[in-house]
Amino acid sequence: MSETVLNDHVEHASDPAAGDRARALDAHVFHSWSVQGQTNPFAIAGGLGTTVWDHDGREYLDFSSQLVNTNIGHQHPKVVAGIKAQADILTTVAPATTNLVRGEAAAAILAHAPGFQSVFFTNGGADANENAIRMARLHTGRDKVVSHYRSYHGNTGAAVVATGDWRRVPNEYARGHVHAFGPFPYRSEFWSQSVEQECERALQHMRRVIEAEGPESVAAILVESIPGTAGVIVPPPGYLAGLRELADRFGCMLILDEVMAGFGRTGAWFAHDDHDVRADLITFAKGVNSGYVPIGGVIVSPEIHETFSGRVFPGGLTYSGHPLAAASVVATLDAMASEGIVDNARRIGADVLGPGLAELAAKHPLIGEVRGVGVFWALDLVTDPGTREPVGAPVIGALKGALLQRGLLPFAADNRIHVVPPCVVTDDEAQQALAIYDEAFAEVGASL
Amino acid sequence: MSETVLNDHVEHASDPAAGDRARALDAHVFHSWSVQGQTNPFAIAGGLGTTVWDHDGREYLDFSSQLVNTNIGHQHPKVVAGIKAQADILTTVAPATTNLVRGEAAAAILAHAPGFQSVFFTNGGADANENAIRMARLHTGRDKVVSHYRSYHGNTGAAVVATGDWRRVPNEYARGHVHAFGPFPYRSEFWSQSVEQECERALQHMRRVIEAEGPESVAAILVESIPGTAGVIVPPPGYLAGLRELADRFGCMLILDEVMAGFGRTGAWFAHDDHDVRADLITFAKGVNSGYVPIGGVIVSPEIHETFSGRVFPGGLTYSGHPLAAASVVATLDAMASEGIVDNARRIGADVLGPGLAELAAKHPLIGEVRGVGVFWALDLVTDPGTREPVGAPVIGALKGALLQRGLLPFAADNRIHVVPPCVVTDDEAQQALAIYDEAFAEVGASL
Repeated sequence: MSETVLNDHVEHASDPAAGDRARALDAHVFHSWSVQGQTNPFAIAGGLGTTVWDHDGREYLDFSSQLVNTNIGHQHPKVVAGIKAQADILTTVAPATTNLVRGEAAAAILAHAPGFQSVFFTNGGADANENAIRMARLHTGRDKVVSHYRSYHGNTGAAVVATGDWRRVPNEYARGHVHAFGPFPYRSEFWSQSVEQECERALQHMRRVIEAEGPESVAAILVESIPGTAGVIVPPPGYLAGLRELADRFGCMLILDEVMAGFGRTGAWFAHDDHDVRADLITFAKGVNSGYVPIGGVIVSPEIHETFSGRVFPGGLTYSGHPLAAASVVATLDAMASEGIVDNARRIGADVLGPGLAELAAKHPLIGEVRGVGVFWALDLVTDPGTREPVGAPVIGALKGALLQRGLLPFAADNRIHVVPPCVVTDDEAQQALAIYDEAFAEVGASL
Repeated sequence: MSETVLNDHVEHASDPAAGDRARALDAHVFHSWSVQGQTNPFAIAGGLGTTVWDHDGREYLDFSSQLVNTNIGHQHPKVVAGIKAQADILTTVAPATTNLVRGEAAAAILAHAPGFQSVFFTNGGADANENAIRMARLHTGRDKVVSHYRSYHGNTGAAVVATGDWRRVPNEYARGHVHAFGPFPYRSEFWSQSVEQECERALQHMRRVIEAEGPESVAAILVESIPGTAGVIVPPPGYLAGLRELADRFGCMLILDEVMAGFGRTGAWFAHDDHDVRADLITFAKGVNSGYVPIGGVIVSPEIHETFSGRVFPGGLTYSGHPLAAASVVATLDAMASEGIVDNARRIGADVLGPGLAELAAKHPLIGEVRGVGVFWALDLVTDPGTREPVGAPVIGALKGALLQRGLLPFAADNRIHVVPPCVVTDDEAQQALAIYDEAFAEVGASL
């Protein structure tokens, strides 16, 4: 593991004036998913590994990984060096020509996806899903895409309508998108009594939705291998393999969205590596280079690649296969492999976070369920363990405040706290964080 | 002008093995807008200013600016330095928090857009248009977006359906998109006899389309200030101002897409600066940082910003306001201003490229029309100047070959060669290029 990196802490002087300047200039920034003028005044000045600091020099444990993307931690020196070296060579080039570092990035990704043919690069996860949908539609000659209600696939025109959660509703201007419920043992939509029954019923529900939509109209089943922002809902064993069987039966494509779950988050290179399933298309972003330079993409099966060896693929982007981004991918995947960063995520999940969070749940009745794997966990918070009634926004707000005050950057979604540190998190940092969560839950629990 | 930069030519040794390796690895890359396996084996190894070189050490004048994005030229040392400095501080951060360099980038952009309130950052031009469309729809409470047939607005779900050209047709899965013809004196859709008549009739046509669609259903008119890939179709004086009047009359938003035309390409900060028009939303990408790091965005009016001060804006991206990209924007806009790069583009257009291309047109009957401004020109190629019949793909292919052979990277679209060097192009380079175009047209013209 990258102990060298993490112990080699950089000096950071405080510069409160820079913080004031950041907050003043923020009036010029229109913020995503926000009411303007109500955005977070907290400003990160720098970071290293699992730690970030603000302009006053105060340090925080980043247990959000920002938007669950800094899998390799902040400012990994090998990735920073890779970016700087490529910046000296060539930052940008048109996608139509051949480019060395782009090819190296594709090869580095395919090394973790045996049996796949090629990589189509995009700028992020949304346009990765856009292009996977496009490939599936054109490959099958069909229109409809079936995805989960509890899902997020990006914010562009098709990706946001493939999304199942509330973020779809104000943005619904595309046709051919259908949503079904997925398995969720803790909050079943299928009146299940066991995980096995949940899996079986979710597959039956998916099959009935496809049959009712008309299987000949369905181009793809699109699901996150592990629904992420929806609550780190690890699918029951057999669910993803069951979707593969449905895709084969009905002749549609299976697109696995690994944007948040991929590249180490679960302690595997891809979350679905643990689920005995073969996808036709895999989409990725975030962890592939921890977001150091914007990039995403689609990993393409030989069959779909072959379809577009006979006809033009009608999609593209100016920055597809961007050299600076590609160099950061090569450096990231090299460092993740050589430093055992993916294995570290698995070990921390199995040995520290999993047991530690279970202990917290046993102690704090607010925590209804702990779900997850690797460094990808959700605490499903409830007003009553019996009814499983989700807690409201004030409880989440109080927890966020209590965590931040104790020096931990939290990730919150709906009624949940997600525990999603970088894959490089150390045992010590995980233990520190568990102690902070414990205190925060005690404080907020006592106030209710 | 940046003579210092351009004379300070870097050494570049040839490394043919790297070229071979790039071509071998390219089998792993799925290419945009292409038949797979038929992509361009030409590999750029490096560049500086208007020059690029391949792995054999051969130099080329880049009169494509790649995908018309390297406005500041290749590897501008101040921008490279800005990227490397920010890489050492903080590459990535979540969009929800405040960030200093993001605020600086927003302020630097707004300095060229007086009267606007804020900047929403995206990863590129497509999602800039996606989010401008989203803002217009939610601000007006209306659905339809009217855009031009001769247009390109990006490849994601809504942006590609807003696009009017052939690239829309295989991707048409969104509702609420309507297309109208724009003014194009050389190839009028309105039987016009003069530029003035073309403008008047195009505005009447647009008004009739909006009336026929139901003005109360139209959220926005979305047009490129100068349609770019469609053929550098500079609008007649008064056309954009006329669209503004229509938008005001019907209560819809005017979105000006400046992705290709903005940030110096026309010799102005924005192409519409020369057209006496006020937009509600301006979209940008490419020239804002020459694509050194993927970024784009939407410049937002006070009225639309205010709408989302009372409600959540339901759109976002992991890499919105990415610090590494933001740093490259700040460095780019600083260098463009301090080195007079925008003025250089205007001067080169007025003094060298404009007159030089007109001379070529007078000499070569293949060139039916020369259109453009600044460093943004199209040569509309015809089989016969009388009928204006567009030349076919073989003529364009022959020209591309003849130009590349003479050391010039061309940009071709449909029946046209676009003359689109970086804004830093020198008089000498422009003269060299004119001589190369002259030879290539002579060779291909003689072979017909």
